[in-house]
Amino acid sequence: MSKIESGTVIDHIAGGHAPDVLAILGIDSSTDEVVSVGMNVPSDRLGRKDVVKIEGRELSQDEVDVISLIAPAASINIIRGFAVAEKNRVERPDFVEGVLSCPNRNCISTEGEPVASRFAVLDDGVRCVYCETIVREQLADHISV
Amino acid sequence: MSKIESGTVIDHIAGGHAPDVLAILGIDSSTDEVVSVGMNVPSDRLGRKDVVKIEGRELSQDEVDVISLIAPAASINIIRGFAVAEKNRVERPDFVEGVLSCPNRNCISTEGEPVASRFAVLDDGVRCVYCETIVREQLADHISV
Repeated sequence: MSKIESGTVIDHIAGGHAPDVLAILGIDSSTDEVVSVGMNVPSDRLGRKDVVKIEGRELSQDEVDVISLIAPAASINIIRGFAVAEKNRVERPDFVEGVLSCPNRNCISTEGEPVASRFAVLDDGVRCVYCETIVREQLADHISV
Repeated sequence: MSKIESGTVIDHIAGGHAPDVLAILGIDSSTDEVVSVGMNVPSDRLGRKDVVKIEGRELSQDEVDVISLIAPAASINIIRGFAVAEKNRVERPDFVEGVLSCPNRNCISTEGEPVASRFAVLDDGVRCVYCETIVREQLADHISV
């Protein structure tokens, strides 16, 4: 993968999870951002890993928080002038608000009420603070941003 | 993007549609194939294009047929020994069978009957041959393979 001039490199994503990271970042057929992705490349630390490079975009803390849920070992490198300007490990937050939707259709956060979703972050998933529904798998399917 | 020793390079995908191609090919968190993706890279022919490289895998005709629906300008390069062994433009087939599911829940192809889905390929979408439902947008969301 080639170097980028400025933007973000998300490294050490668990192997195969790059498409989930693209979904979290809203990178789909409507985007015109220049993105490169490596999947299942060899890694000393993880065995195999995915890497996502996005030119000209620095991620928000909200975006990094959601990435941490599906890629807890990820590192976020902010690139400026072809050099790493900042390097951070992701940290799993205690709560995520407004970024995932509750799969329970009767949950107050999904019924058209002006209530933002709020999930407590568990070791192996997230739990809705309103209706206690737990989501463990396919978190990326529940992203509402 | 670096060269691959053997596998498939899907070039000239319309800009931004690489994630749809990955979905068609079933490349997600359960895969361990080595894949690299470039999105919105400059292209003389398309303005901007996506490229997907998959190591060690040659695509089936069924897979190529579905790719043609969302990336009609794509070219499929089969790589063996670091060299292009075959180079083909995709061709839109007249029908696709068993690869898309009909969004009509009452369609005979979706009701648990032993009937494979079958769609006629239109210029701007596909039409179910059983219930006449037309799908024009987000074809990748209807992939059943």
